[in-house]
Amino acid sequence: MLRRLNHIAIAVPDLDAATATYRDVLGARVGAPQALPEHGVTVVFVELDNTKVELLEPLGENSPIAAFLARNPLGGMHHVCYEVDDIEAVAAQLKASGARVLGDGRTKIGAHGKPVLFLHPKDFSGTLVELEQS
Amino acid sequence: MLRRLNHIAIAVPDLDAATATYRDVLGARVGAPQALPEHGVTVVFVELDNTKVELLEPLGENSPIAAFLARNPLGGMHHVCYEVDDIEAVAAQLKASGARVLGDGRTKIGAHGKPVLFLHPKDFSGTLVELEQS
Repeated sequence: MLRRLNHIAIAVPDLDAATATYRDVLGARVGAPQALPEHGVTVVFVELDNTKVELLEPLGENSPIAAFLARNPLGGMHHVCYEVDDIEAVAAQLKASGARVLGDGRTKIGAHGKPVLFLHPKDFSGTLVELEQS
Repeated sequence: MLRRLNHIAIAVPDLDAATATYRDVLGARVGAPQALPEHGVTVVFVELDNTKVELLEPLGENSPIAAFLARNPLGGMHHVCYEVDDIEAVAAQLKASGARVLGDGRTKIGAHGKPVLFLHPKDFSGTLVELEQS
């Protein structure tokens, strides 16, 4: 059911500074900042050989990462995204198992244009888990 | 310089429960627990198609993840490990850039038997970064 690790997301207070650190100190391939106002973030992709890291900076009012950064002003690992083959089947199985899907429990279109679900950190070892249709 | 994402590590208070969640709720392939007393953890590998997740439970006195779990009793994402081609060259470059390498600044043999470094979270967006010789 779980396939690839699609990405890990790191919330950062200063996207330019974090991008420069990954590019100049760690020597990573980084993309240009992309504003995603409908998701309340600006994102930079750090391209690794097998997956990617998404550096996220809040964008606009009510950014979904604002509260996290208020608690973690230096930034930190925000969530992990796993790909699944059939997200509707997974959603049904999660509901049957008692695991909590955030929001209204239905898939939404995520930042990559594919259906996603977010799972409650309390059910997954304190880790916010995103599932994305592969 | 940064190559593959080798793993993400999630510290957990109850390894059996976390393993069962990944196996039974998320349908992941999980291995058997491995005690690594010299690293102060017991680990279960969750195998994904392109990388792995390491579930870490404290083992023995002075486990390096004990303080993290005291602050995060449900568990949480503890560190991310990137592979690099030449870790000694990276260590020199990090030192030149002013980034802080934990410990005495020298590579150590990590849990996979390869040289590793850990970098200070304050220099990397609040994220504990492990670098491993690829």
